[in-house]
Amino acid sequence: MYIEKIHGPADVKALTLDECAALAAEMRQTLLNKLSKTGGHLAPNLGVVEATVALHYVFDSPKDKIVFDVSHQCYPHKMLTGRMSAYTDPEKYKSVTGFTEITESEHDFFTVGHTSTSISLASGLAKARDFKGDHENIIAFIGDGSLGGGEALEGLDFVASELASNFIIVLNDNNISIAENRGGLYRNLKLLRDTQGKAGNNFFKALGLDYRFVKEGNNVAALVEAFRAVKDIDHPVVVHICTKKGYGYSYAEENPELTHCLNKPFDLEKGPDFTPFPYVEGKNERYDFIIREHLLKRMREDPLITTIMASTMYCLSFTAEKRAEAGAQFIDVGAVEEHGVAMTAGIARNGGKPVFVTASTFFMRTYDQISQELCINKCPATLIVINASIYSVDDVTHTEIFDIPMMSNIPNLVYLAPTNKEEYLAMLDWSIDQTQYPVAIRQPRNGVFHAKHEVDKDYSALNRYKVEREGNTVAIIALGEFFQLGETVADLLLEKANINATLINPRYITGIDKELLASLPAKHKLVVTLESGSLEGGFGEKVASYLGIYDGIKVLNRGLQKSFLDTVHVSADELLTQNRLQPEQLCTDILALLNIMQYILEDGYVFGTD
Amino acid sequence: MYIEKIHGPADVKALTLDECAALAAEMRQTLLNKLSKTGGHLAPNLGVVEATVALHYVFDSPKDKIVFDVSHQCYPHKMLTGRMSAYTDPEKYKSVTGFTEITESEHDFFTVGHTSTSISLASGLAKARDFKGDHENIIAFIGDGSLGGGEALEGLDFVASELASNFIIVLNDNNISIAENRGGLYRNLKLLRDTQGKAGNNFFKALGLDYRFVKEGNNVAALVEAFRAVKDIDHPVVVHICTKKGYGYSYAEENPELTHCLNKPFDLEKGPDFTPFPYVEGKNERYDFIIREHLLKRMREDPLITTIMASTMYCLSFTAEKRAEAGAQFIDVGAVEEHGVAMTAGIARNGGKPVFVTASTFFMRTYDQISQELCINKCPATLIVINASIYSVDDVTHTEIFDIPMMSNIPNLVYLAPTNKEEYLAMLDWSIDQTQYPVAIRQPRNGVFHAKHEVDKDYSALNRYKVEREGNTVAIIALGEFFQLGETVADLLLEKANINATLINPRYITGIDKELLASLPAKHKLVVTLESGSLEGGFGEKVASYLGIYDGIKVLNRGLQKSFLDTVHVSADELLTQNRLQPEQLCTDILALLNIMQYILEDGYVFGTD
Repeated sequence: MYIEKIHGPADVKALTLDECAALAAEMRQTLLNKLSKTGGHLAPNLGVVEATVALHYVFDSPKDKIVFDVSHQCYPHKMLTGRMSAYTDPEKYKSVTGFTEITESEHDFFTVGHTSTSISLASGLAKARDFKGDHENIIAFIGDGSLGGGEALEGLDFVASELASNFIIVLNDNNISIAENRGGLYRNLKLLRDTQGKAGNNFFKALGLDYRFVKEGNNVAALVEAFRAVKDIDHPVVVHICTKKGYGYSYAEENPELTHCLNKPFDLEKGPDFTPFPYVEGKNERYDFIIREHLLKRMREDPLITTIMASTMYCLSFTAEKRAEAGAQFIDVGAVEEHGVAMTAGIARNGGKPVFVTASTFFMRTYDQISQELCINKCPATLIVINASIYSVDDVTHTEIFDIPMMSNIPNLVYLAPTNKEEYLAMLDWSIDQTQYPVAIRQPRNGVFHAKHEVDKDYSALNRYKVEREGNTVAIIALGEFFQLGETVADLLLEKANINATLINPRYITGIDKELLASLPAKHKLVVTLESGSLEGGFGEKVASYLGIYDGIKVLNRGLQKSFLDTVHVSADELLTQNRLQPEQLCTDILALLNIMQYILEDGYVFGTD
Repeated sequence: MYIEKIHGPADVKALTLDECAALAAEMRQTLLNKLSKTGGHLAPNLGVVEATVALHYVFDSPKDKIVFDVSHQCYPHKMLTGRMSAYTDPEKYKSVTGFTEITESEHDFFTVGHTSTSISLASGLAKARDFKGDHENIIAFIGDGSLGGGEALEGLDFVASELASNFIIVLNDNNISIAENRGGLYRNLKLLRDTQGKAGNNFFKALGLDYRFVKEGNNVAALVEAFRAVKDIDHPVVVHICTKKGYGYSYAEENPELTHCLNKPFDLEKGPDFTPFPYVEGKNERYDFIIREHLLKRMREDPLITTIMASTMYCLSFTAEKRAEAGAQFIDVGAVEEHGVAMTAGIARNGGKPVFVTASTFFMRTYDQISQELCINKCPATLIVINASIYSVDDVTHTEIFDIPMMSNIPNLVYLAPTNKEEYLAMLDWSIDQTQYPVAIRQPRNGVFHAKHEVDKDYSALNRYKVEREGNTVAIIALGEFFQLGETVADLLLEKANINATLINPRYITGIDKELLASLPAKHKLVVTLESGSLEGGFGEKVASYLGIYDGIKVLNRGLQKSFLDTVHVSADELLTQNRLQPEQLCTDILALLNIMQYILEDGYVFGTD
């Protein structure tokens, strides 16, 4: 076994080319073995094993600097840079994240999980190198859907004319990103593949870039030859390598979309189970199916309704079959959220009824379009914000809790937080049918709950909170998926201290119900806000600010302290505990605030986690 | 005179082509006449007079829909669509904004001022048209530096493969944006100009787009012929027109950068005065010169320091001469903020000392890069946030107050708010020299003040507020450029009510001084926060949240209510009044809160502006 001897890139360089090919085969088997037990980005990594071996064979990392993009293609790189045991030893499987991570290794230059970042980041490494008078190679390894993003295109355009020194872009063209690749650029890549790189109207040459074509992107020897030819080059060059996504594992080669990222173990011999989840309405409920089916129904009934998604089809289980069912009314824009939101604004402006869907962490990529194109123009579009939840946090690059401070402070936007299925569907229908406001809806992640009474159909009278239980002494304002937490805390207060707390479902994240808040001090001594998102800049602070000038009422804001979170190493349950969001903790702190302030001060609980 | 007869596009269509040319000449003279008195975007609009006449001659606005980008090129469009008097009648000069504005006319489809938006917005109009079964022409008019932005490139890539219906991109190639055009794309445009559109490796054809070349972009007849040829086309097409920025006014043709946007009147015969502002250090102080000179000095002394700007060189008066002085250490990335910030992160990561500068409103275009590339990776770079001030608000698309909610809630970022020159320079020097944090600095816009005592040199112990006057009863925490307002209010309180208020300079926007805040309730009944930015999600709410659990202390947050602001129609002084930020108003409200709560409630003052 070669993999046992690989402790760093130097050990790769000591091999012959034939041995490198054997190493690659062992690495592929190792990857398959681990990912069949843990899940993860399978097909992308199977495709880049040879390219990664060749990179470390030719270049001298970490002096030479390789930036991976999308960095979910970095597993083979981690295997070759001192982290092999994280793939071979089941006890160490969790010792690495799924993206490049600066705290893990000096061979990882950035902790990065979003797409399209490598060219710009690497251009910065190159600029600094030139300022310092150094001469290492700088390599941006980009592919698997990353090249079409605006940031990558800006970077490509910049280095083409503004960098006159060593810069190597390895374009990993696997002919697919997550679903189908979209865009004229991918058609040009196909043309270049079909013509062995010789087509006229070469996108890269049009930008003035030097360009090389490597047909056999899964052949170590061919790749080594190509990389050697550009090593120490004195100007930017694009090395276009053609790889096969899922290479070497037939189930993955044949199903690159379904094996892009697996979220559960599978049998290596039988292959992953691609049978659709046996969803039955009213039975095994999940919001992905509920919302997908609802959107499909609405689209069938109304040709002006369109669902637009940015490379996150899996978030609503919009499989190829379901996309086909929606026809032209379903638009996958690829990982280009800026274009996606701006186009959504345009559709709404011309009388269409667009629903744009992506994850909380990817909405961060389109802040300006939400603010300027959508909200200044008051375009009546719907944004569905998926994964916006403490239960969705993955690694630090996918901390899905910043949508509240980001979106709730944009004027004109109506950001709604449903607390159960009936309320969610009513909000969605209202949003699709109304023509006054840009609306965003924060999809809960804590399970599917049901309304205990009739829900409102019309949400156009903004910022009206709903009092679900009328009580006294303590008012709990429990937002979105933390509504059920609020219920539990209210129950505990009754049980432990005979306090009949008021329980409020605020519904609107973008504004406060001034009338209701102003009425609280009469009967209450403490208002508690709960939100499953970043506390700073969020919902609760607005309540604290509004009540700040009132006498005799305290406000306790609870949510997540400002931080990039990481549930690779800390579980969501631990995060709740750290932020004193467990029901028992909340109950303790509420009782303390009502009675014995000094105790709280000494204990330090209420004053945060620092 | 033809312009007197133009009340809408129908009046343009009634003219002969020769008359159209005469109309264009009159429009140019009218533009020159108005702009010589009011300032505004001179050179861009002089260049597009003929193209705009030709567009309205051939197409049927508003049925056919034209989206302008950068929309500062829309003055001739406004003249032809019912708003001629805003250019001919000095009394109506202020009746239009400098960008397309949906509230002004049915011919303006979007209120938009940021670059690179038109293709995506127009693609949405086209998608909705197709869903409705309509057949109008959709035109994106893009140029003057807009094409290189990531959003535009994403849009171009999308329409090339995903739109199979009428879509016309008029590329206004004036061979310059604000300063020099950057990027490989602009080199391709030059090649296309030099070869009459016949070069191999055509960027647009590489994407699979149909492409037409029009050499004479300032010739109405040539443009009419080209536009007629693509009217009602059944697929996307790029019409590349070559115009001359500043056309028809020699001073503008010769100085397209300096006449891009004029901020004061000028003599038409003599031309605008291009003499540099006679800056003398210590005399007529302005932060643009102070910071530019300081950066130039630092760059001369240290080759690792680099200044990076995104098309806002005028914000720090980095003229062509000053850019040349900085040499390779000055990088103008063009209007591509995403690439700019990501490259900045890369430079810092490899040991460089980058200072990235742009306006508050343009930082909105790079939220994700600040969060992910810069802050997750804790890259020690400096961001200078220009124009972040109530005194910088222009039209709604340039509401420069959202940087606080956007940036201050990003983990790991240290956002500093200097209150005077010495403090600003100390913060800037500390930021450049330290290697721990990504740092942003909010440049004041209320004039240059001087420190009354020695300022700190080291800001690495985060979130330590500075007590500038130790008092009692009321504590005023006055952030950044509102520090002087806080001083005035403190003086008024002493004068009017003999209250010796505590005055605090918080310095840090990204965190609160818990120790200091916890000490306030002992001697104070009211804490007042003042910030020149959006109140919601901002600085003051964090203080209200922290003090929410304390007994016997009120908190009053003052700043700007969440709204897109517009100082075309409302002055900054009026905005201050509307938000009860005038010193007398603040004094009244503070005294009322200390004594007669009921009065405040009845008056409604404290409860905001709604």
